[in-house]
Amino acid sequence: MKDSIVRISLSIPKELANFLDNQVLKNNYSSRSEFIRDLLREISVNEEWTEEKDDVIGILTIVYDHHKRELTQKMIDIQHNHYLNVLCSTHIHLDHYNCLEVIIIKGKPQEIIDVSNNISGLNGVKFAKLIKTANIKL
Amino acid sequence: MKDSIVRISLSIPKELANFLDNQVLKNNYSSRSEFIRDLLREISVNEEWTEEKDDVIGILTIVYDHHKRELTQKMIDIQHNHYLNVLCSTHIHLDHYNCLEVIIIKGKPQEIIDVSNNISGLNGVKFAKLIKTANIKL
Amino acid sequence: MKDSIVRISLSIPKELANFLDNQVLKNNYSSRSEFIRDLLREISVNEEWTEEKDDVIGILTIVYDHHKRELTQKMIDIQHNHYLNVLCSTHIHLDHYNCLEVIIIKGKPQEIIDVSNNISGLNGVKFAKLIKTANIKL
Amino acid sequence: MKDSIVRISLSIPKELANFLDNQVLKNNYSSRSEFIRDLLREISVNEEWTEEKDDVIGILTIVYDHHKRELTQKMIDIQHNHYLNVLCSTHIHLDHYNCLEVIIIKGKPQEIIDVSNNISGLNGVKFAKLIKTANIKL
Repeated sequence: MKDSIVRISLSIPKELANFLDNQVLKNNYSSRSEFIRDLLREISVNEEWTEEKDDVIGILTIVYDHHKRELTQKMIDIQHNHYLNVLCSTHIHLDHYNCLEVIIIKGKPQEIIDVSNNISGLNGVKFAKLIKTANIKL
Repeated sequence: MKDSIVRISLSIPKELANFLDNQVLKNNYSSRSEFIRDLLREISVNEEWTEEKDDVIGILTIVYDHHKRELTQKMIDIQHNHYLNVLCSTHIHLDHYNCLEVIIIKGKPQEIIDVSNNISGLNGVKFAKLIKTANIKL
Repeated sequence: MKDSIVRISLSIPKELANFLDNQVLKNNYSSRSEFIRDLLREISVNEEWTEEKDDVIGILTIVYDHHKRELTQKMIDIQHNHYLNVLCSTHIHLDHYNCLEVIIIKGKPQEIIDVSNNISGLNGVKFAKLIKTANIKL
Repeated sequence: MKDSIVRISLSIPKELANFLDNQVLKNNYSSRSEFIRDLLREISVNEEWTEEKDDVIGILTIVYDHHKRELTQKMIDIQHNHYLNVLCSTHIHLDHYNCLEVIIIKGKPQEIIDVSNNISGLNGVKFAKLIKTANIKL
């Protein structure tokens, strides 16, 4: 049963369909279906991560404008509230405006997601992405 | 033209179709189509990154076993060969076996992808993921 | 002439004289003179550093209380004003109050000392120490 | 008793005596004695650090040549043997030869000194300096 195949039908903008076809070609997939299957599997692995019972590691990368008053203060306050989870953070001063901060967080997946959402959601954060190092036995 | 909609049809395992439906529900999408469109757009943004002419920042996260002889040496050699691109790296000793390394790389997208692939492809690297901080005007 | 030896005489608290004698013993020096000579030579090397014409690296370690309002903002502002000098900084959230920050600075010795003094002098910084990686040909 | 003053007499090279006099002037000390007293007190504070019963933080800065085979491997092996003590390390690739590594270590002073000595003593390490963040209540 596990392997039974179903057909689904989607409506997408022509432009995106063209992009999909290019990706299929470029990455040597044999069909659109195969490409989408891989995309879904990747998300699925990511989802499993949140079910993990043991401690895992998340890496949150953010870019923000340090001129946004209060932002740096709030960011540090959040990290301190979770200081047992936040292992360390590395900061690069990109230019006069932009800060890059890479925050390494350890804990249960849900804790990591919480810290991450708290920080990413701050007003002034231009970019935020959480890497989940799934399936590594620590 | 840009907005014309086309229908595409896919064959996917039932299990993955169920997973897709759960994701649609869980993330408040109105349809499977809408969910897949967003997935494709995200990849598309990522692709544009590689066309970027200006310097951008990439963050490569890897996990590896430091007992794998030669691995750490090779990793450092690669980073030195690109020392103008590698801004810094942060290392966490996860346990007796596993190292987490977060490497911050600056340069043209293709340079970043090259360094990243060189490192990720080393024998002994268990996990590797490159974050592309797209669309930030540096 | 360079090697001519002179005698100098000092007044120091008895307690400190005892400490000096213990250090001489503990570190296998043959005399108080030899110990003090080494101390002075170390400072002298440090002094030479500031004469260096080429770029050198300084590592500033600070500990501060992040509850001190404005402090984190000021610290980041200073670092951004010198963003060409500050290569990166690593931050550890020690506990609910204390932040440890290690700031790696590149430039002419005087530039490094200036950035360092600006940061160390901020109200709320509890500890500050600058390491000068002298005599490394970069 | 504590404040009783003793006189000690030292033999030092003329050159170093001149350097001492310059330092006295430059740093606004009223005498050579006062300058030397401050030097000794600073060492004394450092010594007290090693008596500390609680966890403290040490920051070890090293510069080494990554072409020295085995060196990077040994360095990582040592850090992993003490992975509970080594919080994180930050690495800058200075040029084709030189690596700068800043290692943040937590633990009893003696543990920190041990890790530090093990690493500093490795063949190929050109520069090593341990910062002791004394007297910070964590």
